[in-house]
Amino acid sequence: MGEHATALLRSYVSGGWHAPSGDGAPLHDAVTGEEVARISSEGIDMGAALEHGRRTGGPALRELTFHQRAALLKALGGHLREHRDELYALSARTGATLGDSKFDIDGGIGVLLAYASKGRRELPNDTVFVDGAVEPLSKGGTFAGRHIASPLRGVAVQINAFNFPVWGPLEKFAPAFLAGVPSLVKPASQTAYLTQRLVELIIDSGLLPEGTLQLVCGGAGDLLDHVTGQDLVSFTGSASTAQRLRAHPAIVRHSVRFNAEADSLNCSILGPDAKPGTAEFDLYVKQLVTEMTVKAGQKCTAIRRAFVPAELLDDVAEAVGARLAKTTVGNPASEGVRMGALASLEQREEVRRSLKGLSEAGRIVFGDPDHVDVVDADAELGAFISPVLLRADDPDRAEPHEVEAFGPVSTLMPYTSTEQVVELAARGQGSLAGSVVTGDAAFARDVVLGVAPWHGRLLVLDADDAKESTGHGSPLPALVHGGPGRAGGGEEMGGIRGVLHHMQRTAVQGSPKVLSAVTGQWVAGAPRQEGVHPFRKSLAELRVGDTVVAGPRRVTPEDIAHFAEFTGDTFYAHTDEAAAAANPLFGGIVAHGYLVVSFAAGLFVSPEPGPVLANYGLENLRFLTPVKPGDELTVTLTCKQITPRENADYGEVRWDTDVTNADGESVAKYDVLTLVAKEATQ
Amino acid sequence: MGEHATALLRSYVSGGWHAPSGDGAPLHDAVTGEEVARISSEGIDMGAALEHGRRTGGPALRELTFHQRAALLKALGGHLREHRDELYALSARTGATLGDSKFDIDGGIGVLLAYASKGRRELPNDTVFVDGAVEPLSKGGTFAGRHIASPLRGVAVQINAFNFPVWGPLEKFAPAFLAGVPSLVKPASQTAYLTQRLVELIIDSGLLPEGTLQLVCGGAGDLLDHVTGQDLVSFTGSASTAQRLRAHPAIVRHSVRFNAEADSLNCSILGPDAKPGTAEFDLYVKQLVTEMTVKAGQKCTAIRRAFVPAELLDDVAEAVGARLAKTTVGNPASEGVRMGALASLEQREEVRRSLKGLSEAGRIVFGDPDHVDVVDADAELGAFISPVLLRADDPDRAEPHEVEAFGPVSTLMPYTSTEQVVELAARGQGSLAGSVVTGDAAFARDVVLGVAPWHGRLLVLDADDAKESTGHGSPLPALVHGGPGRAGGGEEMGGIRGVLHHMQRTAVQGSPKVLSAVTGQWVAGAPRQEGVHPFRKSLAELRVGDTVVAGPRRVTPEDIAHFAEFTGDTFYAHTDEAAAAANPLFGGIVAHGYLVVSFAAGLFVSPEPGPVLANYGLENLRFLTPVKPGDELTVTLTCKQITPRENADYGEVRWDTDVTNADGESVAKYDVLTLVAKEATQ
Repeated sequence: MGEHATALLRSYVSGGWHAPSGDGAPLHDAVTGEEVARISSEGIDMGAALEHGRRTGGPALRELTFHQRAALLKALGGHLREHRDELYALSARTGATLGDSKFDIDGGIGVLLAYASKGRRELPNDTVFVDGAVEPLSKGGTFAGRHIASPLRGVAVQINAFNFPVWGPLEKFAPAFLAGVPSLVKPASQTAYLTQRLVELIIDSGLLPEGTLQLVCGGAGDLLDHVTGQDLVSFTGSASTAQRLRAHPAIVRHSVRFNAEADSLNCSILGPDAKPGTAEFDLYVKQLVTEMTVKAGQKCTAIRRAFVPAELLDDVAEAVGARLAKTTVGNPASEGVRMGALASLEQREEVRRSLKGLSEAGRIVFGDPDHVDVVDADAELGAFISPVLLRADDPDRAEPHEVEAFGPVSTLMPYTSTEQVVELAARGQGSLAGSVVTGDAAFARDVVLGVAPWHGRLLVLDADDAKESTGHGSPLPALVHGGPGRAGGGEEMGGIRGVLHHMQRTAVQGSPKVLSAVTGQWVAGAPRQEGVHPFRKSLAELRVGDTVVAGPRRVTPEDIAHFAEFTGDTFYAHTDEAAAAANPLFGGIVAHGYLVVSFAAGLFVSPEPGPVLANYGLENLRFLTPVKPGDELTVTLTCKQITPRENADYGEVRWDTDVTNADGESVAKYDVLTLVAKEATQ
Repeated sequence: MGEHATALLRSYVSGGWHAPSGDGAPLHDAVTGEEVARISSEGIDMGAALEHGRRTGGPALRELTFHQRAALLKALGGHLREHRDELYALSARTGATLGDSKFDIDGGIGVLLAYASKGRRELPNDTVFVDGAVEPLSKGGTFAGRHIASPLRGVAVQINAFNFPVWGPLEKFAPAFLAGVPSLVKPASQTAYLTQRLVELIIDSGLLPEGTLQLVCGGAGDLLDHVTGQDLVSFTGSASTAQRLRAHPAIVRHSVRFNAEADSLNCSILGPDAKPGTAEFDLYVKQLVTEMTVKAGQKCTAIRRAFVPAELLDDVAEAVGARLAKTTVGNPASEGVRMGALASLEQREEVRRSLKGLSEAGRIVFGDPDHVDVVDADAELGAFISPVLLRADDPDRAEPHEVEAFGPVSTLMPYTSTEQVVELAARGQGSLAGSVVTGDAAFARDVVLGVAPWHGRLLVLDADDAKESTGHGSPLPALVHGGPGRAGGGEEMGGIRGVLHHMQRTAVQGSPKVLSAVTGQWVAGAPRQEGVHPFRKSLAELRVGDTVVAGPRRVTPEDIAHFAEFTGDTFYAHTDEAAAAANPLFGGIVAHGYLVVSFAAGLFVSPEPGPVLANYGLENLRFLTPVKPGDELTVTLTCKQITPRENADYGEVRWDTDVTNADGESVAKYDVLTLVAKEATQ
């Protein structure tokens, strides 16, 4: 092993592939011990790489709209999908089974696609993100506030863990890219050859603007010395390294956004209802075994503490042990192998050390830390270890709540009340994920609300969702990933939230006219332009602020009576004078809200075929003043926001709609949503 | 001065007033130099105080709903308003004019009232906050996710600056309290006597649950050694102290949420259009003088860098100088005095030192750092200083962008293009606030979008909003306060965002039934209960999940034609078979969306007088499938969320509404919003 010189991993920095000087350090196949590659970052100018991202990648990204960035993520996901087999093969050398590899590689591609989809559906086709509603700041309406989010002008630096060489970089890259911020990836050395190949595939695809993705293989060197207040640093790995990086002088000096995901002492709780024979009992046992053995337990989210009702402890220990006994360990390339190797021999030593600590508080009920039967591999040359289940009958002992063995290791502990198990869960001092397995929704509610302050994610597993559940250990792009305290205090993904982490939120104060100019969205009080009916304008012709005022139309008592009869909406406030007079809010007959919006549409519509294709919805409708028989309605419809679709010949237009009475009071306000053709048809 | 012993300030910790041991250090009147009080935190058990907050204050707060907490904030604001005069008098001793005092004291009370109002309007009357929409996680709909936010189980520790002894603690206290997190306030010593009196008034009011507000006067001692991952620390003050605290071992070890607001080198930019004679020119000059002199320039948000078009530099320098010359400095209690003293003699020495640095790059065009004429005070015994305006003709010099004089000091600098001024603004490396004064909305847009990544807040001042504008320096409860980089990288207030900073966001995954149980809001796919029509149930009887299914009703061609004629909505897709057939989305006549929702209401309504008082709105309406003539509509209305109002005999009920056709496809989905009586009337 390691006699012949393998290739030195190259880094991709400052617009080109960099071959390190020197010999580098060897990286070993987790299964065979063979040398896979050598690694070094010697000779990389870290400051220049960051500056390249800021000067080249950032500006290129910021020229694209959110939808255009989303389209690139989608294309990238499709491209990588075609190269999965090659990545699986390389992944096997990290000790991963095919299932493990899919978790990592397909999971990473899935994040790209999920962000592509969310970006298109939840972000505007624009470069400015408007955050939240207009905040009125004055009585007269000439001064208001609104928040915008702008991409930070630096680089999102990723310092990643060894256990997810593909998912790790992609789950951080996708939201940064969508936000308009370039990334620099520094993988953990152990499995960097897989990340390096991933980045090679991405760069070779030519899909990404130059400078939006860089890669540093090897040590970080003085990388962090060069970060500024516009850069971000995110770290995934051990709690102790997270602490060291968080206190880095440059990070502290420039208030650099620092996000950590640290492996934590996650728990899984079995409900008292889930006795042997119930679906939930089996689900609990199966999930615990899965979490212990997937990636050989090398997951930040894996279950380390398994809490079960005291009276079920023996049953659970027995069932888990029986299942573990059937888990074949060995060469992940071999048929029937369910658990591969740890990532390295060093990692195995670390797990054995931690097991000594845990054994102070609990006894081993399954597995032998020093011996394991393996299939198609050498148990000593490869970083193999047996799954180990401990049982700590006194859950108040400190060790199970503090010592983490980052491998296929978990500790069973008993509890006797909901209050106690909530307290025990909190003793992990902050976790990425937790799960409750129960068929009792009330117990689930009590536990979830009790332990939520210590958790970034909580899964409730039961017979209802088991078939479709993604399980305890899977972070999902739509949900936040990260936990408080020991888990690092960070938050990633969570859909668009993860995009906003890469942006600066700024409160903008000004006149409605200025707020409209800055955000590109019409704001009440901003100028309106009347002229050609705006429904006659294609997307190309339409401008924010284009307005039509229509009416008045008198609402007669007969209209109300007829609408009641026609629609069947004979609610007494529209039909029974005496009863309506007794209604504390109306004091007499009022028109139906649905009548008001129907008449308003009758007023503002432009009937002939034209660029407006459909009204596909309505938002934020509020009936503000009752409409009495005889009232006259006028409607003012103003183009508020224009969102062209990238891959269609139409787009979405949102119209501010204000229906007023003869006194000028608003009786209803809402947004009308339409689809409008990009170009006039003739 | 200081011969006779003044009172030692007491702290309020662990449920009682604590008189420190020892003599303490003297605090001096900023105007006269007289001793006001003495201060020490000797003998306070900081760990016990935090634990008191966690064990007593937190649980008491968490028993209240958001609306109940909001009501207490409102009552507290009203109570403090009655004691303003006493606070103004004490505030004068800090060097503040009456205007300055109102900024601090009325501003602080304003934050309480603003959060009371936002809490009632934007948060549920519940203890669980649901964050964002349901995230579908499965094809079959049995597995979904949703985020909740729970109050952290620790204490919000405030370490405050000397310049806003009332606003400072209240702007941090209000969102923490609303979130359900108790506060511990440690004011800066210089002006702690005012904060101490504030807290005394609050405690004496008896309005707050014990343990929800504590006060430590004097040094922080080992306070921070006791913080955990469930506590928060927020700091307002100098950038250097912020750095020291951010790297505190306990904060780093437990990933404690740390929020800093550091004084920054904020800028104000004059637009090229704003020549002498324009309203904007005058506004710029007036605002600059205000920002220099209010609180004697001791504001984290004050304008330190004043950028003006090069050709206007002389004009601005002259106009600002002329205005400053009319600013009377002296005893704030005296008639006609516009600027009081700095907070202490030490503060004045600090300002003079910084002025030496700034003078390297610019020359003083108004004021003398070593001399000022004062009214009704001794210029040496009191901490008085003249306003000082500098002019740096070379804006590329480092000093004006790096050296901050925390007093009535600002530097004028020229710029020649939009790109240049954006670049110059960014050289502050992160600011709390900036302003642009221009009548040109396009220039405003370019500058705002250009400098936003370096700013927490940006004001655009022009003739339109000047009358109602709250000005460059005023943080507002509805807008975020805090800036990146040098400004500390923090974010406070911003309405409900500031509440959520005190809460842990947790992704909850489970079946719809479990998600409904956890959040208290019905989720699609969760069980529904049919029975008595839910419109017949008062708020006391109604349950989330109560459902009525009504229909079917056939939509005839005559219905569509009649509706078009009746409402005037003769859009071709409803009236012209040939034209409708050519519509790419419909391919034939379709019913009006408004007809569909009107018929749906006709189906689900329960006409007789009862607990449902009104339909006050509609949300998230989407038309999902076109309704063709002959289609049959069925509507399913399900109680989704119940929000009783604290001070009314009714509450709000949100109904999930799903209109389906004969194939079971949803044709429209939306939420109906109603007001429902708390109790049945008979």
